[in-house]
Amino acid sequence: MPTIFAAAATDHTFVLLSLFIMLAAAKLMAEIFERLKQPAVVGEILAGVIIGPSVLGWVAPSDLISILAEIGVIFLLFTVGLETKPQSIFQVGRRAMIVAVLGVVLPFIAGYFIAVAWDGSFVEAMFIGAAMVATSVGITARVLGSMGLLDKETSRIILGAAVIDDILGLIILSLVSAVSQGSVSYAGLAKTSAAAILFTAFVALIGSRIMNRLAPSVERLHVSKPFFNLGLILCLGLSVASLYIGVAAIIGAFLAGMALAEATEGNKGMHRLTSGVTEFLVPFFLVSIGMQLDLGIFRDASVVALAVIVTIAAVVTKFVGCGLGAYGMTKREMAQVGVGMVPRGEVGIVVAQIGLGLGVISAQFFGSVLFMAVATTLIAPPLIKLFYSEDTDNDGDEDVIVETDVTEDFTRIG
Amino acid sequence: MPTIFAAAATDHTFVLLSLFIMLAAAKLMAEIFERLKQPAVVGEILAGVIIGPSVLGWVAPSDLISILAEIGVIFLLFTVGLETKPQSIFQVGRRAMIVAVLGVVLPFIAGYFIAVAWDGSFVEAMFIGAAMVATSVGITARVLGSMGLLDKETSRIILGAAVIDDILGLIILSLVSAVSQGSVSYAGLAKTSAAAILFTAFVALIGSRIMNRLAPSVERLHVSKPFFNLGLILCLGLSVASLYIGVAAIIGAFLAGMALAEATEGNKGMHRLTSGVTEFLVPFFLVSIGMQLDLGIFRDASVVALAVIVTIAAVVTKFVGCGLGAYGMTKREMAQVGVGMVPRGEVGIVVAQIGLGLGVISAQFFGSVLFMAVATTLIAPPLIKLFYSEDTDNDGDEDVIVETDVTEDFTRIG
Repeated sequence: MPTIFAAAATDHTFVLLSLFIMLAAAKLMAEIFERLKQPAVVGEILAGVIIGPSVLGWVAPSDLISILAEIGVIFLLFTVGLETKPQSIFQVGRRAMIVAVLGVVLPFIAGYFIAVAWDGSFVEAMFIGAAMVATSVGITARVLGSMGLLDKETSRIILGAAVIDDILGLIILSLVSAVSQGSVSYAGLAKTSAAAILFTAFVALIGSRIMNRLAPSVERLHVSKPFFNLGLILCLGLSVASLYIGVAAIIGAFLAGMALAEATEGNKGMHRLTSGVTEFLVPFFLVSIGMQLDLGIFRDASVVALAVIVTIAAVVTKFVGCGLGAYGMTKREMAQVGVGMVPRGEVGIVVAQIGLGLGVISAQFFGSVLFMAVATTLIAPPLIKLFYSEDTDNDGDEDVIVETDVTEDFTRIG
Repeated sequence: MPTIFAAAATDHTFVLLSLFIMLAAAKLMAEIFERLKQPAVVGEILAGVIIGPSVLGWVAPSDLISILAEIGVIFLLFTVGLETKPQSIFQVGRRAMIVAVLGVVLPFIAGYFIAVAWDGSFVEAMFIGAAMVATSVGITARVLGSMGLLDKETSRIILGAAVIDDILGLIILSLVSAVSQGSVSYAGLAKTSAAAILFTAFVALIGSRIMNRLAPSVERLHVSKPFFNLGLILCLGLSVASLYIGVAAIIGAFLAGMALAEATEGNKGMHRLTSGVTEFLVPFFLVSIGMQLDLGIFRDASVVALAVIVTIAAVVTKFVGCGLGAYGMTKREMAQVGVGMVPRGEVGIVVAQIGLGLGVISAQFFGSVLFMAVATTLIAPPLIKLFYSEDTDNDGDEDVIVETDVTEDFTRIG
């Protein structure tokens, strides 16, 4: 390679090489896990652990990778939203609300008391509680989508509860952060909460109607693939709007998809184009989660113990809290809802990072929360597969080529 | 927005906002240009000029945007490769070679003498010549693809010539860079050139056979969307390999697509998933080109004169050189080949940046080359549309919704 060209190309070469390694490793592990009849997502997250700093060190977290990961999960939730008609969420709204509230209260209390028992300060305990709260619905959506079960009632409860859960998480995080800095502005808190709730309600209630009315005009546009392009713009636009309001970008992306669900129903081309973007970018999201895991914390036995206890508490409290929230359904359905809400993923990590950045939580608590976030994300998919196994058409016959995607599965089943 | 959350979200929020602005502006301008019956690509590049530092300053070039742009053009050439069976290029190989050589020699000579006439040094003149050489085939591929004309003989000559042209450009750039540093290692130069030629020939000749043989095993994979995922991995892998050898990443991406062209023929799902990624990312490539344009150079009349002369020479020499290379075809076809090779795009910019980085070219030459690169890219699409206008089915009827993509057009026409 001529050194002169190398100088100009190095940065891009290195980045593209990293992306290549991430994608190839993710798909290799997905293939292995599929053959072992385990969820592909677990393989892809483990691929991140293996190629990340903890083991091989081939790829390290970077701003670019974290942005690609974020765009990946944004498109994942947009795709899920496209399959979710607003009505199907409103039908389960009351139950989703109870599931969300119980699934926030129990983990928060558990996190708080574990931290206090571990000699954590009051602020530290508040932060650990807050980090236990927010469900990362991307993982569950991915698993249920690949099983073609997004249209089930329990799936819709999980999706609805995840949206509410994120808003509650935002409010708790704002409160905890304010407390940690010694000043709680109840007016500011009320304003933030109101903005988040109003934004979500507005898009959920009105967005779909606006899009349905716009649909004929969109079809008359001259630009190629008008619905796909409208979807891209709406998805990015509402994601950004969500971030400005303070909730996660994926909430905006999900709402954007939901707003378009009716207008693009049966538009297979548009759904397939979207799922191309999702398929390409989601591996970066999954591998990124794995790369965050620092296996180094296992050198300290007390941190291992804390991490394990935090993880068990995170799984149990979410499972029990959300499961109880679905009281009145069958036990199996209660368990499905409970297990679907278990993954914490990147949301817990973000909360812990804020605490670390403010200098109010110790490195051992940070490491434990990180471990919990990755571990719950790894534990949930096999449990989801188990609890939902009787509901799927897929008999797992090895010789059948299942070239499925969310769209096709939904069309087939829904 | 709670300040605490803002602190964590700012970076991502800002980046996502930039992406949203770029995408929305690109699509808005594409729509306007389509209505004016002008090529959408021109609108998207102008969108970059408008939102970039020269006019509104809403978005500035950054590492992240340049990587997204690069991935965008990589996927664009991969998509084009998927529509290009190796045989169809080999058939026009001899002619493509002559087109490439003449299309390299004339612009180089013109650039050299313009710089000398403008009081440039010997090294400076060599660099300006080198910056005039390399065709950026992405723009042409985009326009021909949207017209459904990628399978025409002249399109195939353009694609083949662009690959050869890039290798010649690499050799010239290596030579010029070595000269500018006062030492030419002919052994090193021969090694680089041999590696580039061998890599290209190997993938072009053997790649397709390997993929055709692997196809049945790929279908038996357990991972979802096996061909699409194989395509993603191959595309990124060969792009990286190209960069290591020293040629542009898009050459590797094009070869990766071509290697899969026969194995995935008729696999509409795979093609559509790929075109989803392409559609999402290509606007970042086009907008990025526009953002590079520094309108500030127009404040200096002598730079304006230089920029205009360089641009006219770049258009005329490429048009005449490549047109003559197609001697023996009809005049119309010669003109089609000539005009298709005109855009310089990002390749000329990279060469000029290397010269600037080495401190061997002046700011006024740099500004002129930058202007030439963007201007040729803006001038070519309307000319391509004009020269190819009688070959397309599309009568431009305003009421017809043309929800086309490269894949569909090819299937319909090919």
